[in-house]
Amino acid sequence: MKIEHLGIAVKSLETSDDLFARLLGKGNYKKESVEREGVTTSFYELGESKIELLEATNPESPIAKFLDKRGEGIHHIAFGVENIYTEIERLKKAGFIFISEEPKDGADNKLIVFLHPKSTNGILIELCQEKNAV
Amino acid sequence: MKIEHLGIAVKSLETSDDLFARLLGKGNYKKESVEREGVTTSFYELGESKIELLEATNPESPIAKFLDKRGEGIHHIAFGVENIYTEIERLKKAGFIFISEEPKDGADNKLIVFLHPKSTNGILIELCQEKNAV
Repeated sequence: MKIEHLGIAVKSLETSDDLFARLLGKGNYKKESVEREGVTTSFYELGESKIELLEATNPESPIAKFLDKRGEGIHHIAFGVENIYTEIERLKKAGFIFISEEPKDGADNKLIVFLHPKSTNGILIELCQEKNAV
Repeated sequence: MKIEHLGIAVKSLETSDDLFARLLGKGNYKKESVEREGVTTSFYELGESKIELLEATNPESPIAKFLDKRGEGIHHIAFGVENIYTEIERLKKAGFIFISEEPKDGADNKLIVFLHPKSTNGILIELCQEKNAV
């Protein structure tokens, strides 16, 4: 397991892409929209991890709701795992609750699933696996 | 630069150490108090990064205030850098504001400094460097 990425909710990708390029000393390597989730994402490499900036594409998007409630900031941590199905089983046995137990397609060619923050100290944790890895 | 650690504010290390051991499938590797900061910390390895749980040791601790205001959750991201003084200069030139420009001793044998969240999308970002690295 590793930190695959940190998801950061931002109001404006234009503003925050400029900010993170200055902060990290390099630009993003990818921009990708996930229509079903109502987000446009922008990715930065950071060691073995990534920073994923998330901008809402409509007011019903989970990111729009997060911004309304909490403002800009860290939205989720994603743990990269080799086999998402094995990890879901392990964590269910360990008492964790999932928002949905069935992995779905995420950005960046990943299968993703979220643990419910009520079982994880209020932190939204994503598990993700490369789609072609299993 | 890499994600050196994620700092997570928790109400009780006893409860959260149990939770994170189940989540990550392994126990912490270190527990350390930093009296000046009013925190006890618990560290977990996660790839090239670490998770640092932070429990307040007194009600005036910055972590106690964060918990009162925001509840449990991610408190800061720490970027590991090779030379903290070079990075402070680079980031000041790039327009970033620091809470204090002089690095101080942190947990885990590190020199640390914090960027002001008002210049970083509301995220508290720490720079840290191994004390014996320069």
